[in-house]
Amino acid sequence: MTIDEQIEFLKKGTVDLIREDDLRKKLERSQKTGKPLRIKLGLDPTAPDIHLGHTVVIRKLKAFQDLGHTVIFLIGDFTGMIGDPSGKNVTRPPLSREEVNANAETYKQQMFKLLDPDKTELRFNGEWMDKFTAADFVKLCAKTTVKQILERDDFTKRLADEKPISLHELLYPLTQGYDSVALNSDVELGGTDQKFNLLMGRNLQREYQMEPQVIITTPLLEGLDGVNKMSKSLNNYIGIEEPANEIFGKVMSISDELMWRYYDLLTDLTPAAIASLRSRVHAGENPRDIKVDLAKQIISDLHSRTEADAAEAEFVRRFVQKEAPDEIEVRSVTAGRQNIAQLLADTGLASSKGEARRLVEQGGVRVNSERVSAAGADVEIGPEPVLIQVGKRRFLKIIGE
Amino acid sequence: MTIDEQIEFLKKGTVDLIREDDLRKKLERSQKTGKPLRIKLGLDPTAPDIHLGHTVVIRKLKAFQDLGHTVIFLIGDFTGMIGDPSGKNVTRPPLSREEVNANAETYKQQMFKLLDPDKTELRFNGEWMDKFTAADFVKLCAKTTVKQILERDDFTKRLADEKPISLHELLYPLTQGYDSVALNSDVELGGTDQKFNLLMGRNLQREYQMEPQVIITTPLLEGLDGVNKMSKSLNNYIGIEEPANEIFGKVMSISDELMWRYYDLLTDLTPAAIASLRSRVHAGENPRDIKVDLAKQIISDLHSRTEADAAEAEFVRRFVQKEAPDEIEVRSVTAGRQNIAQLLADTGLASSKGEARRLVEQGGVRVNSERVSAAGADVEIGPEPVLIQVGKRRFLKIIGE
Repeated sequence: MTIDEQIEFLKKGTVDLIREDDLRKKLERSQKTGKPLRIKLGLDPTAPDIHLGHTVVIRKLKAFQDLGHTVIFLIGDFTGMIGDPSGKNVTRPPLSREEVNANAETYKQQMFKLLDPDKTELRFNGEWMDKFTAADFVKLCAKTTVKQILERDDFTKRLADEKPISLHELLYPLTQGYDSVALNSDVELGGTDQKFNLLMGRNLQREYQMEPQVIITTPLLEGLDGVNKMSKSLNNYIGIEEPANEIFGKVMSISDELMWRYYDLLTDLTPAAIASLRSRVHAGENPRDIKVDLAKQIISDLHSRTEADAAEAEFVRRFVQKEAPDEIEVRSVTAGRQNIAQLLADTGLASSKGEARRLVEQGGVRVNSERVSAAGADVEIGPEPVLIQVGKRRFLKIIGE
Repeated sequence: MTIDEQIEFLKKGTVDLIREDDLRKKLERSQKTGKPLRIKLGLDPTAPDIHLGHTVVIRKLKAFQDLGHTVIFLIGDFTGMIGDPSGKNVTRPPLSREEVNANAETYKQQMFKLLDPDKTELRFNGEWMDKFTAADFVKLCAKTTVKQILERDDFTKRLADEKPISLHELLYPLTQGYDSVALNSDVELGGTDQKFNLLMGRNLQREYQMEPQVIITTPLLEGLDGVNKMSKSLNNYIGIEEPANEIFGKVMSISDELMWRYYDLLTDLTPAAIASLRSRVHAGENPRDIKVDLAKQIISDLHSRTEADAAEAEFVRRFVQKEAPDEIEVRSVTAGRQNIAQLLADTGLASSKGEARRLVEQGGVRVNSERVSAAGADVEIGPEPVLIQVGKRRFLKIIGE
């Protein structure tokens, strides 16, 4: 890939890239020196249960990794082990070292479904924050102004709403930013809600006379409902450890519109390739077939291609064949006993009688869900519809008249 | 002293007392248990050169000490050794441990002119702040809100003026407040400009489940010009290490109005006693005599009573006797040789000839600066004025006609 192509690839589906020029310089230098870039992702140390919403940013890490760069997971154990010191947030009790480590293991286990462990560092900000003295903290705080830090959207909003902001909350963006200094990160990724914190890292690196990191934000992924952000509590999510069959079914349940969003954020397809899929649908192709491909790509990434194929077959067996008759095209033919190969050719399910015979011999043809084993077999066509299936996704109901 | 009298004594010349009820409770408990209260004064660790402006609050400490309580000087070495971490304030470079210790010694030397070393603790906030971890700092910050801390006058003003406030500046009131927690102080004193910081200590003690300290603020003392705050840079100050003669002269130079202010803030005279001095002046007594007493009281506190007397004599010798003739009343009498006692009685410098004789015999009468030793002596009165002095402060110029 050229640098331009790399940037195109890395930009896909992102919201902010600050700044592209800086990214270009870093990529060029890395190419020249052979020294991989350091790509940071900060993680909450609470028990993770990663779903597809999280994989949007993880896939972006993977994109960097695929280009040869080093991914760093930074677990915020320093703040996690403090918990909510104001005692107001009961969902944030302090974690023990053991809990933090166990959560880090769970993260790893899940992350490595997508990422290469050999090109991934797992770090904890306690490494440097536990050694920080009160004086270090004062010096760190001197690097920013009250105004700058209160510009963070949620702070601005809470001030406007006269809702209290505890002073320690102002310290968190600062320590998160300092992590980038300590890690010497070249790029930091995060959701759009993290933009302010990522920029803080960029600013602090500058204050500490370092080359500022590039920041890239990825959008929040809508859940299966297509409306709300994907989240466990709304039960509109696909967990990355769910069985392939579950994932397949859930992807098939999303709207056609949401499908494009998922293509954008959850696959490696280029924008051009996605545009071409769109035009195929526009030209009349059933979007369901495109959705099946999406489901299979997602499963291939999280499990394997084999499991993706199996999930598709299982899905067809369990759901498609039990669809209500009015969802499958119904065709009338002359009633009576008919040769299966002839019938497939006559109804267009095969392009010729020769192809029809081959399909039957490959085991790809079913009549009322039962596989037809010989191309010479006959089918009795009467007033009750007969369900003919070719391959996995072509169906027809035939009625004799 | 009753508790009521104690409170009256402690309140004299103060601006804020928050809250009197709390102070009463603490004083009562101390009286009952015999356990002295802990009275805190925070000091900047920069090189001190204490002048009378500083003694306003020191005198208040002395008032507590005279009632048997313990005074704690808290030197803010933690912040002093950081200096100005934003690098914007060149007058606040970081201090070394040696510099802090040397400054503390200088403080002690000066403070102990007024205070009893045996009832005074000298402490450094580095004792606890140097052990503070980053986590401790986060927890401390969680005890207050952004809004509360931005309510400090100078922060509010700078925000309104869109002047930057560095984030670390928000930490200083907090550490200063925490010092009260660490010291378990019962009362904290400071100038009116310190009110916010003192209240922070009160609030933090409450947050740490301690009995909140009482705060007492003292006003800023006007300098010799009577307009600006006393300060070294304006050269309108009286340094506490200045020689007695210098102090005497400077006090004598202040306006009559400012004299009352100094009586209020720089002496132990009760409000009632000061009111009685005022009415004496109102009834015609020369305010200069009252000012002499003020100067002598100030010198007695800083040096000794003996030095105060010597300074007065020296002042009279050097200045009063050399005053321009138009500043001393001139009286005409019949020219020629006159008996000194008769002359004193005739001019009203003595109430009777008998008193005049006694004054001469006690050595209290001078003619042209030379002591008259016998009541029978004569004085030649001619066209040149003759300076008659009785005691230290009564003068008359007599001309013969």
